[in-house]
Amino acid sequence: MDISSLGEFRFIDRLTDGLSSKRASTVFGVGDDAAVIERDAENYTLLSSDMFLEGIAFDLTYTPLNHLGFKCVVAAASDIIAMNGRPEQLTVSIGISRKITVEMADSIYEGIRAACDKYSIDLVGGDTCSSMTGLSIAISVVGSVAKDKIVYRSGAANSDLICVTGDLGAAFMGLKLLEREKRVLNGNIEAKPKLEGYEYLLERQLHPLLRLDVIEALEQNGIKPTSMIDLSDGLASDTMQLCRRSGKGAKIFLDRLPIASKCFEFGDEIKTDPVMAALNGGEDYELLFTVPVDRYEDVLRVGGIDVIGHMTSADNGASLVTPDGSEIELKAQGWTSLE
Amino acid sequence: MDISSLGEFRFIDRLTDGLSSKRASTVFGVGDDAAVIERDAENYTLLSSDMFLEGIAFDLTYTPLNHLGFKCVVAAASDIIAMNGRPEQLTVSIGISRKITVEMADSIYEGIRAACDKYSIDLVGGDTCSSMTGLSIAISVVGSVAKDKIVYRSGAANSDLICVTGDLGAAFMGLKLLEREKRVLNGNIEAKPKLEGYEYLLERQLHPLLRLDVIEALEQNGIKPTSMIDLSDGLASDTMQLCRRSGKGAKIFLDRLPIASKCFEFGDEIKTDPVMAALNGGEDYELLFTVPVDRYEDVLRVGGIDVIGHMTSADNGASLVTPDGSEIELKAQGWTSLE
Repeated sequence: MDISSLGEFRFIDRLTDGLSSKRASTVFGVGDDAAVIERDAENYTLLSSDMFLEGIAFDLTYTPLNHLGFKCVVAAASDIIAMNGRPEQLTVSIGISRKITVEMADSIYEGIRAACDKYSIDLVGGDTCSSMTGLSIAISVVGSVAKDKIVYRSGAANSDLICVTGDLGAAFMGLKLLEREKRVLNGNIEAKPKLEGYEYLLERQLHPLLRLDVIEALEQNGIKPTSMIDLSDGLASDTMQLCRRSGKGAKIFLDRLPIASKCFEFGDEIKTDPVMAALNGGEDYELLFTVPVDRYEDVLRVGGIDVIGHMTSADNGASLVTPDGSEIELKAQGWTSLE
Repeated sequence: MDISSLGEFRFIDRLTDGLSSKRASTVFGVGDDAAVIERDAENYTLLSSDMFLEGIAFDLTYTPLNHLGFKCVVAAASDIIAMNGRPEQLTVSIGISRKITVEMADSIYEGIRAACDKYSIDLVGGDTCSSMTGLSIAISVVGSVAKDKIVYRSGAANSDLICVTGDLGAAFMGLKLLEREKRVLNGNIEAKPKLEGYEYLLERQLHPLLRLDVIEALEQNGIKPTSMIDLSDGLASDTMQLCRRSGKGAKIFLDRLPIASKCFEFGDEIKTDPVMAALNGGEDYELLFTVPVDRYEDVLRVGGIDVIGHMTSADNGASLVTPDGSEIELKAQGWTSLE
């Protein structure tokens, strides 16, 4: 059977079906942003792993290598943040093809180290091997969280507010911009390459930031989300994950989505819907979380957070409500549909 | 600069040069089998990551997929064992190329689960992505060890005995056997494929076991090694790692090496020196460790362990002593020299 006929999420379900814990120290395994492991009386250890393969997660023709290293760390550590944890250590395994020189590897590690320095994470190990094919990077991050502060995907209640940090869609539009630039440079399309004015889109695609500041601000304001996930796959897919794990439905409102303004400008140019970019583009690495409805004003006071909808009972499903009141069912895009 | 001009070990040194810890919980980072992280008053958490790429770490034409999954877990968890720890959780990240069907992925995970069941390790997460190139597998293992039981590579003293478990060289000879078989099947060489009688070599290559039993037996016998490493790269390279980290030299005696007997038989057939297989072949996943010289009889009493030499002062270097008393300097083979 072809994997694409299952889709990413059903494929993962199949591979991890029926797993049970043999170790008392395993608190929570597959099914959230990070695994949860017993640490001491007050704290859990968090563990999350990500893989980034050339030609899929990145294209070396337009990705500066130091940005690549930085971004891989952010993407991996973002899963720890999404559990309301703090990333502390990471390992980097790297498969290096012949075309990668020592200086290129230096650049990748320069970006890895810059991210580690910025977010106080220690690079403590990993693996290096040669690759017959492309550049392969795998990162595992270990973090910690106080037991009473951990946030799972599963804690959302009916009527909880759905909140999102920062803005959405720009990382995807930045990717489209870079892909257009590549086609221009290859002579495949005739167009004046235009990157000026779109620096924000490039920045969001090539150099995403870790929203460590958000979980710190929430904590300072005494707000503990009831559920949380990081926006790596896109708002639609990630909202559905919160719904699935919480056993709830969701309504998000189109006119409340904080779509980056540059997405409209560039979307016009390439005839791509900015809403689609926000829903299915992914890679924004913002946080999607829920809070009880009575925290509405508290959440807005934190700043940089939009309330975009609310949870519902499961039988409503997960939908996008348009300004005219009609509801569109959200669909999850896994990687197999992107091939 | 081409990476092969540096060699694997100097390349790793370069990438990890000057790293310093920013987190109080980081006890030990790069430079041993696993990173060491503070856990609670009595225990450390161990973390190790490995990457396995198609065409480098394995060849799908002759590797049964369930064996591949099993072996990847053993190879990754072996680093935890080498710190005298117990593996408890692991994550599996997998990059899947188009030629991999759902059933093939099932087989890989069948092997991963079998190893996890056998050694009581919980599969707690990971990542799946599509791969433009070959099958890529990255595994991170978390383990635990009591603080007073941890064994580093760096603790060997002058005159400590060098011990090795099991036998050596068979995994490499098994690989040579499979490669010959592949050439025969491809019609590239004319020869009768002969696998019969060499089941042991195949078993060692395709289905290595985790020497959890050894560290349990050592503990039961009240023996704590002064230094330890797992034999993944070959006896020469791994002995040199113990020397380097302990700031010592070593003499190992050729006639004391526990080379698997089938290695001589098959080595004759393919004109390959079994000693070279033991020294540089790697993938035996046995343990190499040192104990104080007064534990000589205690170590032999455990069973399945050979004393193959002793540590010296650093200025003697690391050498292999032949039966006629001459000394040959050990050389480390990294992956760049294997291309």
